[in-house]
Amino acid sequence: MEHTIIFQPSGRRAHVPEGTTILDAARKLGVGIEAVCGDNLVCGKCRVKIMEGEFPKEDITSSIRHVGKVDEKEMEILKKKEKENNVRLACSTSVLGDVLVFVPEATRTGKQIISKAAGKIKVKIKPAVKKYYVELPPPSLEDPYGDFERLCQALEATFNLNKLSIDCRVLQVLPDVLRTGDWKATVTVWQNREIIRVQAGRVETNIGLAIDIGTTTVAGYLTDLITGEVLATESMMNPQVSYGEDVMSRITYCMLNEETGLKELQEAIIEGINTIAKNAAESVELSPEDISEMTLVGNTAMHHILLGINPEYIGLAPFAPALHKSMDIKAERLGIQILPAGNIHILPIIAGFVGADNVGCLLADTPHKRKKMTLLIDIGTNGELVLGNRDKLISCSCATGPALEGAQIEFGMRAAPGAIEKMRIDKKTLEPTYQVIGNDQWSDGQTDMQTKGICGSGIIDAIAEMFKAGIIKKNGRINTDLKSPRIRMEGIVAEYVVAWKRETAIDEDIVVTLKDVRAIQLAKGALYSASLIMMRKLGIKQFDRLAVAGAFGNHIDKVQAMVMGMYPDCDLDKVEFIGNAAGDGARIALLNVDKRREAHALAGKVEYVELALEEDFNDRFGEAMQFPHMFDKFPHVEDLLSPEGEGAS
Amino acid sequence: MEHTIIFQPSGRRAHVPEGTTILDAARKLGVGIEAVCGDNLVCGKCRVKIMEGEFPKEDITSSIRHVGKVDEKEMEILKKKEKENNVRLACSTSVLGDVLVFVPEATRTGKQIISKAAGKIKVKIKPAVKKYYVELPPPSLEDPYGDFERLCQALEATFNLNKLSIDCRVLQVLPDVLRTGDWKATVTVWQNREIIRVQAGRVETNIGLAIDIGTTTVAGYLTDLITGEVLATESMMNPQVSYGEDVMSRITYCMLNEETGLKELQEAIIEGINTIAKNAAESVELSPEDISEMTLVGNTAMHHILLGINPEYIGLAPFAPALHKSMDIKAERLGIQILPAGNIHILPIIAGFVGADNVGCLLADTPHKRKKMTLLIDIGTNGELVLGNRDKLISCSCATGPALEGAQIEFGMRAAPGAIEKMRIDKKTLEPTYQVIGNDQWSDGQTDMQTKGICGSGIIDAIAEMFKAGIIKKNGRINTDLKSPRIRMEGIVAEYVVAWKRETAIDEDIVVTLKDVRAIQLAKGALYSASLIMMRKLGIKQFDRLAVAGAFGNHIDKVQAMVMGMYPDCDLDKVEFIGNAAGDGARIALLNVDKRREAHALAGKVEYVELALEEDFNDRFGEAMQFPHMFDKFPHVEDLLSPEGEGAS
Repeated sequence: MEHTIIFQPSGRRAHVPEGTTILDAARKLGVGIEAVCGDNLVCGKCRVKIMEGEFPKEDITSSIRHVGKVDEKEMEILKKKEKENNVRLACSTSVLGDVLVFVPEATRTGKQIISKAAGKIKVKIKPAVKKYYVELPPPSLEDPYGDFERLCQALEATFNLNKLSIDCRVLQVLPDVLRTGDWKATVTVWQNREIIRVQAGRVETNIGLAIDIGTTTVAGYLTDLITGEVLATESMMNPQVSYGEDVMSRITYCMLNEETGLKELQEAIIEGINTIAKNAAESVELSPEDISEMTLVGNTAMHHILLGINPEYIGLAPFAPALHKSMDIKAERLGIQILPAGNIHILPIIAGFVGADNVGCLLADTPHKRKKMTLLIDIGTNGELVLGNRDKLISCSCATGPALEGAQIEFGMRAAPGAIEKMRIDKKTLEPTYQVIGNDQWSDGQTDMQTKGICGSGIIDAIAEMFKAGIIKKNGRINTDLKSPRIRMEGIVAEYVVAWKRETAIDEDIVVTLKDVRAIQLAKGALYSASLIMMRKLGIKQFDRLAVAGAFGNHIDKVQAMVMGMYPDCDLDKVEFIGNAAGDGARIALLNVDKRREAHALAGKVEYVELALEEDFNDRFGEAMQFPHMFDKFPHVEDLLSPEGEGAS
Repeated sequence: MEHTIIFQPSGRRAHVPEGTTILDAARKLGVGIEAVCGDNLVCGKCRVKIMEGEFPKEDITSSIRHVGKVDEKEMEILKKKEKENNVRLACSTSVLGDVLVFVPEATRTGKQIISKAAGKIKVKIKPAVKKYYVELPPPSLEDPYGDFERLCQALEATFNLNKLSIDCRVLQVLPDVLRTGDWKATVTVWQNREIIRVQAGRVETNIGLAIDIGTTTVAGYLTDLITGEVLATESMMNPQVSYGEDVMSRITYCMLNEETGLKELQEAIIEGINTIAKNAAESVELSPEDISEMTLVGNTAMHHILLGINPEYIGLAPFAPALHKSMDIKAERLGIQILPAGNIHILPIIAGFVGADNVGCLLADTPHKRKKMTLLIDIGTNGELVLGNRDKLISCSCATGPALEGAQIEFGMRAAPGAIEKMRIDKKTLEPTYQVIGNDQWSDGQTDMQTKGICGSGIIDAIAEMFKAGIIKKNGRINTDLKSPRIRMEGIVAEYVVAWKRETAIDEDIVVTLKDVRAIQLAKGALYSASLIMMRKLGIKQFDRLAVAGAFGNHIDKVQAMVMGMYPDCDLDKVEFIGNAAGDGARIALLNVDKRREAHALAGKVEYVELALEEDFNDRFGEAMQFPHMFDKFPHVEDLLSPEGEGAS
């Protein structure tokens, strides 16, 4: 007996024999579902939502449960709320009737375009961790001096290292390693201070891992500590996403689940980091234990959760973090599976909402070393802004919401194949044409584009184009007076159809709704007004450079973003997209210890501006939400706009 | 139905209903059996040996198994070898017939006289850990500075503490603790360097724990870090005893059980330390977490095993230890359950067989500060000797074996009630009289003394008296030509009956055998010849002080020991019994950080003499094994001997 199975949002469908697991069906259809544990009911990654209740009438024959029962092991993995919502593990759920299965973003695999590629950095190689090869005279009855002291003598004689201590884990294996290696050994020393590893014989490899914990993506850069070269880049979705898309919802999760919430989130990210470390090391045929040190950046909430610090207070006024300064913690104490005695260096943070990721950006972009006035905007779920130059730096944070990353947008999705990333609207016909990631062709309104949703750069394009075509009014409302089948009301909410059902992989029209416009208005309003207040704080009317950082920053269209008013108007050649500068900063700190001191000094130097304390912030914010903000004052922007919108990006 | 149960070595017996567990029977009879887990089949402490095969004929009616079967849970706890030897857990073994149960020393509780009472020490109070009370201004939007930095500002302003770091465990609770205490907090700081605890409000208590890990006994001194007072003394048998009575047998256990041996031994001692910490803290109504720091001494093998270092190489020439220097390790990393961020300071060691316990002795006895020449003998399973003064110190170690502690002696036992501790022998009748611990009366050969065995001081008395009565010849043989029912042959081994069966609690005669004499000869020969070689090394003929340390040292008779030739002859007023100096040293290091530096300097200063390298060691050793060694050269010792042997102890 066969049943129909349909996967959402991909829309893929097939007939499968009764008893097939959902995971097997997905594999057959090429629907990517995460299942790292190999169907062992361990990883819990393959969560899907069974939606037969919402099954299109033509596809479902009855409303009874069309899947097998939850077994005990699955029961343990699923949370109560999940069970109530018909969430199941694809690997252990068998098909017993026609079903519609929704695959949440968090469960989807596939060739995500993670924009967190390592940037080019220029840094003097001066790592915290060095390796030294020594040969020792073996002990004898005349010279029965201890192994450690013997080793120190050799290190002092050969490399002038003195007053070394030794980690207790290394001490445990020291006698055996020295004897196995016939008194020839390679010693890994941290900060010329502590022995963190001893290996028999001569070992040249010396690697570290720089990690950038984003709210959405975690990226790791396996780095050669001798050459500075990036040996492997590994990234993955932040496993905490299943606990909440944005920082505030995760903080809320910790607060609502006082006993275990923080621990769950901490374990999730540590497991994620361990996976990255393992994959990165194994991709170059090394073991995670070969990673001698790790540097970490992340926003303040990610930072606190990683360290197991209650993040509640950074979510409440006055938003004081638990600490600003950088931390050095033994990997073992955090449960991070690199060299157990290896150090985890966590960069300092500036304020409750200006985190170590921002410090990383500063290290990479170095506004503090420039005479030129830089406005640095790191766009994520929060916008973190720094303005200044070598004389003075101020920072602030504004809640942009996750809209600019494609979340909280009706058809928002991350930058992955099938996501609309560029769009143009014909001002006369009001007909759109768009490109999806993974396909160079522009859409024609007829062809099946396998479109799945709209990513961050796509939504900016869409909204800028909708405004230019008059579909969005200055106040953000959708002009329903316009005659087009694409402009319609869905209940009381106006929307614009970007892709007809026939073009999509998800079996429904893809639209931009008034709610989406409002979400983007809030984001761009926040960024823009924050920029203005920062400039006023420093008493300047214009900056010399605009550095836009963030995974997001790589894909947006400079012109469209300026049209929308995401950042103050300036000459386009002043605008630089600096990519994942936070991750670059983590690599810099990994490769050069002096940069850690620089980061520390920087974090202390940057003055934090609390926007909530600015009397006119709400007024400026309200103004900045208008469309388009800058045209009146900087009409030359309009000239830059071409129908193809070939900006400088 | 009732059965007879007899406990060995106490000899207590009773009739109990069928099905009674051995543990319950023991409790009813007042036979002390360790059972810390409360009969939960977890701790495995209540191991007993079922001996119905050796049951006296009049007490047993059949040779079949008279106890219940081993169940699964018990099976897991018992080692293979134990099962073969009829070892069972008293808590889960029920009586199904008449049984004889042997309670091994390791299983016995009861009022052991542990001679590890804290000695008087004189030390300036300057602990590594101090507590500071601060009140902080709460954060505000105008001043949203981080909690840690806020705390540091207050500590700097009030106490001039700067550049503090914070342990990651403290950081985790910092935000909540500060807010709970309404921004008033007590901060525990280690070495004026690291914050290791934050408590809400004002807390005055500041305590530490000094631990002395002996091969046989572990002692802990809970110490007030403000007054220096000992708040509680806790001691227990070293739980490693079940893996081997002496150091070498434990090292062998590690070598034979490569995978798990070391880990088992390490876990055993850590569990022991945790028990001591818990009991000590709870005895003064505190929690183990209130213990802010711990100092530890122990011989090199105990030191290595505690740290999880393979001890194999300290048991093999050239006996090189893994390290000499002191270690500071977070309690959490060792699994020691005091304050998780608290420090464990392990004192330095001198050589493979001269351990941190000896360094502790030096700290307590301070020979390095005296002009007078001191011979310091720390008697344990190994003898550790130091000779010298403020100009020079040399040390050596000799294998005394456990005989002087009462082990490897046929009827040897630790100093506990029922142990013979003093003995005299009438030179004419060859009849002995003795005292047992816990009873002031001298024996008369008839009265039931509830005698159980002979402890260390008893065996020295016995052998010195046997020699003086002519029972032992100069070469150590027992003179079987003498006419006495007490001198007899047991197979091919001669023995002397100290107590008739009727006087004992163990239902058999207590004897001193030729083997016992040999074991003592080896021990005293080693100590004596080591002393001589040390003196020769320093070119001296006499010392000014003889300091005898060790739990053992408290109970021996100065004169008898000198008669036996345990240490070189000297005026009795030069002899000081300094008690558990190792433990005193641990307390000194706990109370004063400068003393840790002193210990470090000391460990480096003491020159180690490897006796095995001395050409004539074997000759000297052979000579020193004779009885009595010193009479020819120092006949005045003979004058000191009185029949009652009232020495100066």
